[in-house]
Amino acid sequence: MPRGADSAAPRPRTGRRPGPTTTRDAILAAARRRFAEVGYDRATFRQIAAAAGVDPALVVQFFGSKQELFLAAVRMPDASGVLGGALEGDPATAGTRVARVLVGWLDDDAARSVLIARIRSAASEPSAAELVRQAATEQLAEVVRHLGGDHPDVRGALAASQFVGLVMVREVVGVEPLAALAPEELVELLGPTFQRYLTEPLALDG
Amino acid sequence: MPRGADSAAPRPRTGRRPGPTTTRDAILAAARRRFAEVGYDRATFRQIAAAAGVDPALVVQFFGSKQELFLAAVRMPDASGVLGGALEGDPATAGTRVARVLVGWLDDDAARSVLIARIRSAASEPSAAELVRQAATEQLAEVVRHLGGDHPDVRGALAASQFVGLVMVREVVGVEPLAALAPEELVELLGPTFQRYLTEPLALDG
Repeated sequence: MPRGADSAAPRPRTGRRPGPTTTRDAILAAARRRFAEVGYDRATFRQIAAAAGVDPALVVQFFGSKQELFLAAVRMPDASGVLGGALEGDPATAGTRVARVLVGWLDDDAARSVLIARIRSAASEPSAAELVRQAATEQLAEVVRHLGGDHPDVRGALAASQFVGLVMVREVVGVEPLAALAPEELVELLGPTFQRYLTEPLALDG
Repeated sequence: MPRGADSAAPRPRTGRRPGPTTTRDAILAAARRRFAEVGYDRATFRQIAAAAGVDPALVVQFFGSKQELFLAAVRMPDASGVLGGALEGDPATAGTRVARVLVGWLDDDAARSVLIARIRSAASEPSAAELVRQAATEQLAEVVRHLGGDHPDVRGALAASQFVGLVMVREVVGVEPLAALAPEELVELLGPTFQRYLTEPLALDG
């Protein structure tokens, strides 16, 4: 676990803000936005501290390193729980429900920043790539297992590839027609792809 | 056009290699590999020069800036021609042929480096993001127009999202089950997705 990433973070000594939790949350929110906007390599302690209204030294005091700040900022606590909820109901429409959860994250400011920060940063920073790898091989493969599909690792990775590509093309690169579509339109376009990857017969035993 | 990116590149004065074209090609090949391995921000003139066996000053002399070197290194001259070839034949199986071209690029060292370098770099460098945007909105949308599909921009962007995500998950993040699949297995898994995005009825007029 990153140093200072839990509630036992060191109490800052400047006293500029009411309490350490508030300051810490402000730094994390600023870091999340910055990592989402420019990716891991171009985000700096200085910019993040300025956006949070604190001294850069305080960011270092709280989080130690950029990697620890990144890992604390891009936590997504209830991902598997939310995806689990999509599994209730008819398995034949699970793809649409999974698409609705994933696209819904892009419609929520905090979740959207976390996802964009992770995926943008995965292009160069191994600790970010590891988070994306885990989402593909653990969370989405777990969805496949719940649905009773064969080859959960391959199916999870295929579903991850479509979602990661959506975030890259729609949010990072900003390809206009996808950026302009309403969330529910995206769900209808992507639902059958997730349905096929997660549950339908695939040529995997050839 | 990037300075020095055509055949009229300035002749290097060191005379270390037989001729400017050979030196230039060695620099471009080294740059392509390095941008693919670590992305735009972490690639340096110094590393690229060392890999090409030349002085860093010569790289600057040839290409001027990192952005110009990047744009020269990640050219992919015949993409639209190759994709065009996939359009001949039965439109009902065009998705598989497009998948075969795209997956085939990942099986070719030079094309693979170009694609990974572009997509990895698109996460932080706007000039790389622009190349990905053009591929989605021009080359893949053109495929849709050839196939007579409606909404070519949305269809092209959806197809691009699946391919960009494949490169991210398989090549950049390195999710094992996808990395281990044979190219023709990938073609069979992805073909129906491209078929649907490129030609089949989509809920786009709601």
